[in-house]
Amino acid sequence: MSLDYTISHRLTAAQCNAQRELAPAQLVQQLIEIATCHADSLDFGFSRLQSLGILWVLSRISIKMDRYPQLLETYSITTWVESFNRHFSERNYLIADSAGRPIGYAHTVWMAINMRSRRPADLTVLGDLNRLVCDHPCPVETGALIRRPENPDRIHNYTFQVSDIDCNRHVNSARYVELVLNQMNLATFDTNLLRHFEIAYKHEAHCGDSVTVESQTDGDTVTTAIMAGDTPVCLARYTLTPRKPAPCGPCL
Amino acid sequence: MSLDYTISHRLTAAQCNAQRELAPAQLVQQLIEIATCHADSLDFGFSRLQSLGILWVLSRISIKMDRYPQLLETYSITTWVESFNRHFSERNYLIADSAGRPIGYAHTVWMAINMRSRRPADLTVLGDLNRLVCDHPCPVETGALIRRPENPDRIHNYTFQVSDIDCNRHVNSARYVELVLNQMNLATFDTNLLRHFEIAYKHEAHCGDSVTVESQTDGDTVTTAIMAGDTPVCLARYTLTPRKPAPCGPCL
Repeated sequence: MSLDYTISHRLTAAQCNAQRELAPAQLVQQLIEIATCHADSLDFGFSRLQSLGILWVLSRISIKMDRYPQLLETYSITTWVESFNRHFSERNYLIADSAGRPIGYAHTVWMAINMRSRRPADLTVLGDLNRLVCDHPCPVETGALIRRPENPDRIHNYTFQVSDIDCNRHVNSARYVELVLNQMNLATFDTNLLRHFEIAYKHEAHCGDSVTVESQTDGDTVTTAIMAGDTPVCLARYTLTPRKPAPCGPCL
Repeated sequence: MSLDYTISHRLTAAQCNAQRELAPAQLVQQLIEIATCHADSLDFGFSRLQSLGILWVLSRISIKMDRYPQLLETYSITTWVESFNRHFSERNYLIADSAGRPIGYAHTVWMAINMRSRRPADLTVLGDLNRLVCDHPCPVETGALIRRPENPDRIHNYTFQVSDIDCNRHVNSARYVELVLNQMNLATFDTNLLRHFEIAYKHEAHCGDSVTVESQTDGDTVTTAIMAGDTPVCLARYTLTPRKPAPCGPCL
């Protein structure tokens, strides 16, 4: 039994951003998707947990990319489980080019919650999951706690709409990533690579909820909070690295 | 040589909307994607046209669905060309369940434009394209002209953001569909099926452009205009049909 799981992708135009690269939110979507497929294949996925009244909830993502897959490029995502404990599971990812060379890594933390109480659930009912742990190296970890910016330099308001809602009636995890990055303009991403991106999901938001998106830039690091009043919905931190060689401009 | 082209999909959670169905905007994305693949395979796609300084631009979509593919359902989209003339091509689609039974159809109009002047281009440089036309029936056509609502009952403002922009630096065609449907609330789509949806793309919008989204409901028909000042960016019309049997509610 293989403990890792790989899906190949070819980046279509529809999945690209303005820089003709895999959009970070689309990457997050693909990380969630492959986690779901892998967990299902090893029988600790949504279906099995649902029968036990338990739900996997994504708690944290950390992504480090040397570069992003480009338009029409074939790339792969490989995932494996780093650890389990009573309430959490850590899962790693390798993003590789068509020759299998690493172009990025990701680390995620998933929490098991009780479907009804929304409180942490006990994963030990699934038996010993440690046999599913894989020791591939992954050079990206969950960083320090992300705090709400104290002196935000960009603040926008947003109300969640029908198109932001996922099949669980909450705001889509990838949509938060878009809101975080939408604090910047196109020129920022034309001239900079989103090298390291971290997001912590704190509270679920619903259709019609209004939030404030607050960002603060300190050197090459930007910290962003999506706040519903005084409640953090999610907190993100990322670094921007100047692109080399030429920035990507309008094409076609 | 086959004149039609089919792609199979399995609807993942990430592509679903709150009703656990293929989101209409996602369907539009898939219609564009398969058109691109099909045109490329017959050598009248973006690559060949680009070498001639010509670009395909999506001008109009009309979709009629008996139902939408559901979470984890396998479905297929088949496309074929209905007609070519000097400036336009009409393309049809069949959306079918895993047994090949039709669940919906779509009709699109594509315009060839000169990349630099953005004016209509002459497709006759490609030779006789009529040999690529296929006479499969398609029971959905471009309807009457869609007009800007005269007495809108819902008006929202929106400014296009980084995440709305596609690889051609314009607003993503699917994103307009989301904006059109975001005029309504979740309950509307819980209790109604988006049975017939038409959108006409009029002018390209860019990152940072501010628009007004105006909707007017007349019986079961809603007309929506996305306006940049007095310039229509796109115009949409759709019908809502009460769902049978029970409306889809919160799950998991």
